Amino acid sequence: MLAKEQISEAFKLLQDRICKALENEDGSGKFKEDNWKREEGGGGRTRIIQDGNVIEKGGVLYSAVHGPIPDFLKNNIEPTTNNEQPTTTFYATGVSIVIHPSNPMVPIIHMNVRYFEMSNGVWWFGGGIDLTPHYVDEEDAKFFHSALKQSCDKHNPNYYKEFKKWADDYFFIKHRNETRGVGGIFFDKLTQTDSVTKEQLFDFVIEVGNTFAPTYTKLMNKNKSKSFDENNKQWQLLRRGRYVEFNLIYDLGTKFGLESNGRVESILMSLPKMAGWEYDYSPKPNSSEEKTLSFLKKGISWS
Amino acid sequence: MLAKEQISEAFKLLQDRICKALENEDGSGKFKEDNWKREEGGGGRTRIIQDGNVIEKGGVLYSAVHGPIPDFLKNNIEPTTNNEQPTTTFYATGVSIVIHPSNPMVPIIHMNVRYFEMSNGVWWFGGGIDLTPHYVDEEDAKFFHSALKQSCDKHNPNYYKEFKKWADDYFFIKHRNETRGVGGIFFDKLTQTDSVTKEQLFDFVIEVGNTFAPTYTKLMNKNKSKSFDENNKQWQLLRRGRYVEFNLIYDLGTKFGLESNGRVESILMSLPKMAGWEYDYSPKPNSSEEKTLSFLKKGISWS
Repeated sequence: MLAKEQISEAFKLLQDRICKALENEDGSGKFKEDNWKREEGGGGRTRIIQDGNVIEKGGVLYSAVHGPIPDFLKNNIEPTTNNEQPTTTFYATGVSIVIHPSNPMVPIIHMNVRYFEMSNGVWWFGGGIDLTPHYVDEEDAKFFHSALKQSCDKHNPNYYKEFKKWADDYFFIKHRNETRGVGGIFFDKLTQTDSVTKEQLFDFVIEVGNTFAPTYTKLMNKNKSKSFDENNKQWQLLRRGRYVEFNLIYDLGTKFGLESNGRVESILMSLPKMAGWEYDYSPKPNSSEEKTLSFLKKGISWS
Repeated sequence: MLAKEQISEAFKLLQDRICKALENEDGSGKFKEDNWKREEGGGGRTRIIQDGNVIEKGGVLYSAVHGPIPDFLKNNIEPTTNNEQPTTTFYATGVSIVIHPSNPMVPIIHMNVRYFEMSNGVWWFGGGIDLTPHYVDEEDAKFFHSALKQSCDKHNPNYYKEFKKWADDYFFIKHRNETRGVGGIFFDKLTQTDSVTKEQLFDFVIEVGNTFAPTYTKLMNKNKSKSFDENNKQWQLLRRGRYVEFNLIYDLGTKFGLESNGRVESILMSLPKMAGWEYDYSPKPNSSEEKTLSFLKKGISWS
């Protein structure tokens, strides 16, 4: 049976590969690493890139933390487990990425892969990738979703459809009635069943992780030299404002992190260098901003 | 007995007085008014000021809404009432203000006064004023707190002490372990007792409302012509970032508003035109930024 150390080791290597690929495509930005330890057990390797050619602010974070299950988590988890042994400790490891580019024609991206287990033997994988273009380019959205579908299809013909819907529902800014971007895939609590082993789920999660770099660097490359004006930059600030709203109000990873007394600077690396809000803004009729809003809906078929 | 309509009428007049005083001190900015109706009952008068001489973005909002109690609110409220009649409808009215100035030497300010009642006869007042300087000026903080203390003391010798502590606890960014600013006063669920009538509480709440304009316009006037540099503007963006974190993660008014399907543009008027985040920023030793952080603590005596 796959041990937790093997999983976190694979996540560490994934972080390495992704950082290299992003630095390579950016051309000038370099990741800076902060190693940190968690008082109750474990720690992480936070890597931040700032003011590159393409990337204005981004993070590729690895962590593996463990210890007694925090009370607030206990309340959430215990009723879903059917254990007779007392659940006393947990182990959580993962890689999290958010990239905010400076050129508004390059999309924001997020990726996460994670593994969680408890000392009562209950374990699961989770993860996902989703794209938030400041301006939706239909060709890019299709390319992105097709890449995700291809990776999913290698493992299970139902994954893409199921996890695409999950992303639409998860990355949704309820009070705005709009999706965060063009979605992607999202999944949680994947555990073994009669038809899938732990090793197979692990392979799938690593595949998702490996899909990130070639897909996003292609979108960086295609869009990084596009021209833009002051109006495009203003719109980018507003779109980033929505990103901030989602992350601070709805994102469960952020909530979990802050409530479990996690490393604040690592958790909030997802926030952009600058964001903006304008009272009651609405884009001009037939503008590319208006067109973008029309795509921020659940259930659009992109693949 | 004071009727709810008298309270909301007084709040409307308070909004008028405050808008006039702010326009007068700003010198060029003018409020624009949006009248809106709530589907389930009631509505509001949202007034926004943008790109003035002193005020970059601000709102002075009046609303009076009513209707069946939303379920999520029912769960919060019912256990605290000792009623035998079924609680079926509510009425809520108030004035809310947030002002983000453009000059980083002028502080951000927030004020709220509110009244809530249910058809079972349960009612209460709430409110508060708090100041968030980008740079803490001790003289200004003392002036501000002394003004609040003076207003409180006219009504009850214990109010200032009690409500100042309440503000320290409420306007606290837990994950940063820092207060939002230098605090002020905060109070909620004030209802009649053997020693205080509804009319007396109403008088106190109106006094709080009337303390806002003379106090804040004095701070605008004193600081609006101070010089600042690029470094001060950067710091202002970071302080506004913390303001956004507080409002989206902790503020109960924002949470209540968004969950009750309130008017999003009115609720989120509290967010600044622009805010920023920088990974793991810490100010230079002995800088005025570092000095400001040293004042963002609970329990500082300012009066």
